[in-house]
Amino acid sequence: MKLYCSSDPHSWIVRVCLMEKKLAPDLEVIVTSSGETRRAAHLARNPFGQLPVLETDGGFFISESTVICEYLEELCPDPPLIGQTRAERAECRMWMRRIDLNICVPIDHGFRLTRHGSLLFPPIEPAPDAAETMRDLARTNLTWLDQQLRGRETVCPDRFTLADLVLLSFVEHGITTGQPLDPRWSGIERWLIRSRQRPSVREAIGALAETAQLSGTV
Amino acid sequence: MKLYCSSDPHSWIVRVCLMEKKLAPDLEVIVTSSGETRRAAHLARNPFGQLPVLETDGGFFISESTVICEYLEELCPDPPLIGQTRAERAECRMWMRRIDLNICVPIDHGFRLTRHGSLLFPPIEPAPDAAETMRDLARTNLTWLDQQLRGRETVCPDRFTLADLVLLSFVEHGITTGQPLDPRWSGIERWLIRSRQRPSVREAIGALAETAQLSGTV
Repeated sequence: MKLYCSSDPHSWIVRVCLMEKKLAPDLEVIVTSSGETRRAAHLARNPFGQLPVLETDGGFFISESTVICEYLEELCPDPPLIGQTRAERAECRMWMRRIDLNICVPIDHGFRLTRHGSLLFPPIEPAPDAAETMRDLARTNLTWLDQQLRGRETVCPDRFTLADLVLLSFVEHGITTGQPLDPRWSGIERWLIRSRQRPSVREAIGALAETAQLSGTV
Repeated sequence: MKLYCSSDPHSWIVRVCLMEKKLAPDLEVIVTSSGETRRAAHLARNPFGQLPVLETDGGFFISESTVICEYLEELCPDPPLIGQTRAERAECRMWMRRIDLNICVPIDHGFRLTRHGSLLFPPIEPAPDAAETMRDLARTNLTWLDQQLRGRETVCPDRFTLADLVLLSFVEHGITTGQPLDPRWSGIERWLIRSRQRPSVREAIGALAETAQLSGTV
């Protein structure tokens, strides 16, 4: 297997998932600012031009971070990051999609649509008002999530899952793109402190710093 | 099993999936404009307050349309709407997430953030500029998808999947909310004509009209 990745939050989710499952495919770090993701060689892997992309041993290309993780879970079910039963998998996927659509997407647009962010994602045009609307939406949904997280340590009660990883990746992305946590979100703060202590997460933070250096983003 | 649903595009996806799999759970149609989805009884089923929600025979509540469909596929794999192999499932999920995030979400925001749309989704505030940015984004991504669909009849080549259903639901939603198809999108148009002819889709269009009447939206 081979993972094409960068220092973006979606690549990070897949990197931590691989570490949890003790899988170590070949890595190819792509410098997105070089325009390589819009060239034919990469579009053959993912016609939408995004990262990460996993090339399977069968030569099949899979993109979309959570979809790559679903594939890795099927390939290597232990330790489970989605779930061992139908109900567990449904619970994790439900939380993952709630977070993905209602928190990650607006945080992502809340950066891409700013003047600074749009420079990194051509052909996106800057739309500062829309960026602010998206940031507001992320804050509204994080306020809701904060209430849900009070009194528990993980997104799915009593087990660390892909839903925690997806949330963690975008909470950290928000923090580095001018979308800080509200000090009143004590449930999220407590969850964040614990999540950052997880060994795979600590290891991935180190690997990410190295990737950022390789991909020229620091 | 019991499905709580309304006349929204996400409920429609689950209804067609159930028809494909010849499953007929009890249905409870909820009138969203009555405010019922924000009351305690519904928040106990889905704390995010959305529809559809599936109550399993085990008394577990699953929300998020595509997650309900993943559950139904595991429960009743025949006919397959996601895939029979690891690679097929990855292919369908990849297309489904591309469409979900890059087409459905902006079409949805392109309606919810308008003055008219925001009235239906309190506490969303109208943000017409952001609605227009989201409509532009949907158009950009549909232009890309149109190129992908030329020369094939389904989103995943040679098989009708959940990815077609998700796209169909939001293309139709766009058409009814002032986001028409561009006449240049001949790939999408051809795909749309074929998809609408599928028996489960024809049946669901009838059921949807009935639900819309029950839920007071017509």
